[in-house]
Amino acid sequence: MAGHCSAALFAQPVVVEQLTILAPGLLGASVAMAARRFGAARRIVVWARRPEVRVQLETLPWCDAVHATPEAAARGADLVVICAPVENIAPLAAAIRPHLATGAIVTDVGSVKGELCRRASAAFPTDAPGPVFVGSHPMAGSEKCGHEAGTAELFQGRSCFVTPFDDTPPAAVETLVRFWAALGCEVVTMNPDQHDEIVAHVSHLPHLAAACLCALLAGKNSNWRNLAGPGLRDTTRVASGDPKLWRGILHENRDEVLRALRSYQDELQALHAALANRNDLELLAILERGKAWRDKIRVIP
Amino acid sequence: MAGHCSAALFAQPVVVEQLTILAPGLLGASVAMAARRFGAARRIVVWARRPEVRVQLETLPWCDAVHATPEAAARGADLVVICAPVENIAPLAAAIRPHLATGAIVTDVGSVKGELCRRASAAFPTDAPGPVFVGSHPMAGSEKCGHEAGTAELFQGRSCFVTPFDDTPPAAVETLVRFWAALGCEVVTMNPDQHDEIVAHVSHLPHLAAACLCALLAGKNSNWRNLAGPGLRDTTRVASGDPKLWRGILHENRDEVLRALRSYQDELQALHAALANRNDLELLAILERGKAWRDKIRVIP
Repeated sequence: MAGHCSAALFAQPVVVEQLTILAPGLLGASVAMAARRFGAARRIVVWARRPEVRVQLETLPWCDAVHATPEAAARGADLVVICAPVENIAPLAAAIRPHLATGAIVTDVGSVKGELCRRASAAFPTDAPGPVFVGSHPMAGSEKCGHEAGTAELFQGRSCFVTPFDDTPPAAVETLVRFWAALGCEVVTMNPDQHDEIVAHVSHLPHLAAACLCALLAGKNSNWRNLAGPGLRDTTRVASGDPKLWRGILHENRDEVLRALRSYQDELQALHAALANRNDLELLAILERGKAWRDKIRVIP
Repeated sequence: MAGHCSAALFAQPVVVEQLTILAPGLLGASVAMAARRFGAARRIVVWARRPEVRVQLETLPWCDAVHATPEAAARGADLVVICAPVENIAPLAAAIRPHLATGAIVTDVGSVKGELCRRASAAFPTDAPGPVFVGSHPMAGSEKCGHEAGTAELFQGRSCFVTPFDDTPPAAVETLVRFWAALGCEVVTMNPDQHDEIVAHVSHLPHLAAACLCALLAGKNSNWRNLAGPGLRDTTRVASGDPKLWRGILHENRDEVLRALRSYQDELQALHAALANRNDLELLAILERGKAWRDKIRVIP
């Protein structure tokens, strides 16, 4: 079950000697910038797939070294954070595994965890000393992408899931929890599959709800778009996210997303019926249930 | 058909001698504050239903006089803006009608227009001189309510529908268009029924999409709420709107809302099928259609 980590755990700060970021986009750049800002890493080493990005990264203050391969960037790392699209995370973890020292920790920032952590962990057996894989998922980001969009404050007050299996070495989990806490996250540890059920509802479903709303409106007169008020803009903001990244996320979390989507369709059908049948009590009950839930949501400035 | 009003029309500023606001909440207070700030009214007179609110209003700088009845507040008005819940607008318009001078304009800020404008206009025949009813709907507001939440800047850059019938005197429409433009709105005139089809899609449907998402999540573990990232908060913000106000709006625009809701359900079902059938091309097509639409939405700072 999920458990918020105690304050005592965070009292001992973590300082990673070498932090390696693979494929820094918005999230990876923000991890590096926050680690630098909050003193959570002494040395930050980076690999990016595209040479032109590597040339850019060399000039940035949060980047101490840029390597041309993931293997070279991972060498000597105490903590590797893989920020690639979800389908590339397990292959990258397997590729760098032989170049890591015992006790090195590999994590990721992928939006799905169950299958991904099982695949990634396959290369990191826990029955002998060696590097360790533990999944992470900081609930931060935006519809923007690219390292240029990163900020050191991205994680302040955000939830971060850390998702060990039962046999993951506790010391590695603890170090990772301290790392994310140092970056400003409120860390919660849970089983990877439980993570997937939750984010299917609180992240993947909202994305689909917004995407379908926009896809529907795309078929209407294009002038309608600019007649809308701020409500539509907020409701649909996430639909600007990268479709290919999202396709990968939805594929990896298909079963949980389909279940959440079906529940949402049932809720909409109940509302449709209440409105069509002039069932005032039921209509009001749905709106009030929604408002009561929303009014208690945590607001981060 | 809809037509954006020409810049030339706005070059002649409108100054209303007496502006009367009936039932000022967030919107009515903002109309008064903006009218004062931008010099669109010389004298602002107000009626509120509750005596304790009237006592508060007397002390506010945007309020020159407070009356105990709508009829008394309407007397002498050049422009009356009715800001009551949609079901109360036509009765209020009919009640104040005998107390208005020829040429006085009555409008509202209701989120529905077709049936409402027909009912309200019934008391304002256009075949003889008298006061005139013309509907308005500024696409501004928030999930907050009450006059305390009002701001003079609420209308800056927002769309405002003005919805005359074919026989509405053009001079009254023109004055009303100038008034909203003076408050900062981008005004668009169209038939009340066309308005209802558009806002069913760009305002009422997004509200229902958010409300159902929250109603669904209300049935889950309450800890999930605070594990979400900023996406869920934005996607669901409007669900905090007043359920009773929204029930009124949905009732008034039932047919258009049901049509829009059904189209949304169809879109979600298409996405469900694409994901379930591993139809990658279709899944990506929906996400890309949504993103393309959202990326072109107007952003107001």
